[in-house]
Amino acid sequence: MAPVKNGRYLFNEIPSGYPIPGQTTVYDESETIDLDTVPLNGGALVKLLVVSIDPYLRGRMRRAEAKSYNEPFKIGEPLMNWGVGLVLRSDSSSVKAGDHVYGYFKFQQYEIVDATRVLVLENKEGLPWSAYVGVAGMPGQTAYHAWKEFAEAKKGDTVFVTTGAGVVGATVVQLAKADGLKVIASAGSDDKVEFMKSIGVDVPFNYKTTKTAEVLEKEGPINVYWDNVGGESFEAAIEYAAKGARFIECGMISGYNTSEVYQVKNLMKIVTKQLHIHGFIVTDLMPKYNPEFYSSFVGRIGRGEIAYKEHLLVGLERAGEGILDVQSGRNFGKCVIVVGEDKA
Amino acid sequence: MAPVKNGRYLFNEIPSGYPIPGQTTVYDESETIDLDTVPLNGGALVKLLVVSIDPYLRGRMRRAEAKSYNEPFKIGEPLMNWGVGLVLRSDSSSVKAGDHVYGYFKFQQYEIVDATRVLVLENKEGLPWSAYVGVAGMPGQTAYHAWKEFAEAKKGDTVFVTTGAGVVGATVVQLAKADGLKVIASAGSDDKVEFMKSIGVDVPFNYKTTKTAEVLEKEGPINVYWDNVGGESFEAAIEYAAKGARFIECGMISGYNTSEVYQVKNLMKIVTKQLHIHGFIVTDLMPKYNPEFYSSFVGRIGRGEIAYKEHLLVGLERAGEGILDVQSGRNFGKCVIVVGEDKA
Repeated sequence: MAPVKNGRYLFNEIPSGYPIPGQTTVYDESETIDLDTVPLNGGALVKLLVVSIDPYLRGRMRRAEAKSYNEPFKIGEPLMNWGVGLVLRSDSSSVKAGDHVYGYFKFQQYEIVDATRVLVLENKEGLPWSAYVGVAGMPGQTAYHAWKEFAEAKKGDTVFVTTGAGVVGATVVQLAKADGLKVIASAGSDDKVEFMKSIGVDVPFNYKTTKTAEVLEKEGPINVYWDNVGGESFEAAIEYAAKGARFIECGMISGYNTSEVYQVKNLMKIVTKQLHIHGFIVTDLMPKYNPEFYSSFVGRIGRGEIAYKEHLLVGLERAGEGILDVQSGRNFGKCVIVVGEDKA
Repeated sequence: MAPVKNGRYLFNEIPSGYPIPGQTTVYDESETIDLDTVPLNGGALVKLLVVSIDPYLRGRMRRAEAKSYNEPFKIGEPLMNWGVGLVLRSDSSSVKAGDHVYGYFKFQQYEIVDATRVLVLENKEGLPWSAYVGVAGMPGQTAYHAWKEFAEAKKGDTVFVTTGAGVVGATVVQLAKADGLKVIASAGSDDKVEFMKSIGVDVPFNYKTTKTAEVLEKEGPINVYWDNVGGESFEAAIEYAAKGARFIECGMISGYNTSEVYQVKNLMKIVTKQLHIHGFIVTDLMPKYNPEFYSSFVGRIGRGEIAYKEHLLVGLERAGEGILDVQSGRNFGKCVIVVGEDKA
């Protein structure tokens, strides 16, 4: 067969504020690949079907010198994230042609991967592949693993969940309700508030029209805080925390796209309220919790017990649009790029 | 016997900055007491021998409406804190005349107390009574209990201890060295740096002449942070924390006497470095750790294995001077007011 185009979505420029499609990132079709003859060197040729867009990607769009828990993206190279692909050919005994695999892929249509670093998805639950990068993938694991590790959930406790309509927040909400907690949750639009109500949030509110501090003053104090936001929300959570409250620090998106830093003025209350504040990166919790996540939680998703919403964009060239949607909160549901059709 | 004066040290006015002796607090000798005939109503008459001056007292000098973990002092009433007294008379079976008792006392020479709320000190170790409000009392418990609860100390770890020459900090230093850690510690004068060196601190420094961030950049990253200071020091500790570091938040004295709040700019690194930040109030840890503290740690003090320094001021009328010394860091060693002689 003749070579085909191998579209890639590249990191082009370090953003100072929001990442702009076509500037921060660009779509490129200059490369081709011969799917039949490209050497595999012991690996597997994977056709990318779906790839996830998550808030943390913004953190990899930084100067090469700036240290963090992950590597910065390289200018001129494809972005990367969790995705699901179809194995077209394999030199490895770990996977075979026709397998669907979950892994950390480049934003490109075809990639030769180390087959020992992907997970073959049996998908007995019959979920759409997009779910495996959302509620049944890294974001679902983020919610599940950290809730189990840090929440110390007790029936009758009150939890405040930020970005409660997002895939992580909505999963946390449902875990908290299952554990018998009163759930306060915020999101940035009225339809998201309606969705939060539909999944059992006791006190859903739109943080753009209602002050977080006022809601927490009335409905708190809170025993658990799930933070995706940071800044003013973090400050309000400290202010209305109960003694000994657990803070699960998943992200602080309010600070990702601005050089201004919100001044948190009540850090002393970490001492006086005896708070326990836990930052975490989900990859470090995966060895401990992935087995039960796949053996038990994914089944609950398959049986329809866990509600989730998706925001699908079709075409790898739309990755930048998805990234901006997620950074600005315009997406309603888990943002996933549908890259290719599920056929060889 | 004729009534005698019963000197009291009173809270007089809410301070806006540092508490000023004679203004924030005043000494009063207007009351008298007849030690032989005053009715005990089931309690015990205690002569106060020593009373502790601690940083947290500043937090009780606040408006009556401002909530915290403890009660605000009342204007016109004596201050209160941990002390040691001599029982002169007792109506209770819990204590008898001649007993030495540890408890939370009013700043006044003679007080009738609920005998069930004091601890009889046997003092087999022969320590000075002042030690029982310092290294062998609440401040020592602060260090011991929180270190055991939160440090997760591992040989080879590095800890940074602020106010490392103070009774809490110096006790933490010695616990950390016993656990095999490398210890970085800060204090505010060169003689305090010398003292820190003498108790085993590997990297002692004067934070007034050397930047904390520069020391931590060179000697870190740190696995444990003992915070008595907050603000800029807290920020530097975050910046140079190792992945998964434990922060023990004992106090943030840098903010106690100012309305200006230092802006901590790197809170997002709580997430990316997977930090665990624990606020605590020692009284809540006492039920769990006091038994082993008294049965084992106080013995180590008695055998001279734990070094400590005291800053003794003789006379209850000097309490305000001691309070200001502690808030401004002028004391070198545990500040204790010697109120009365150890005789009936």
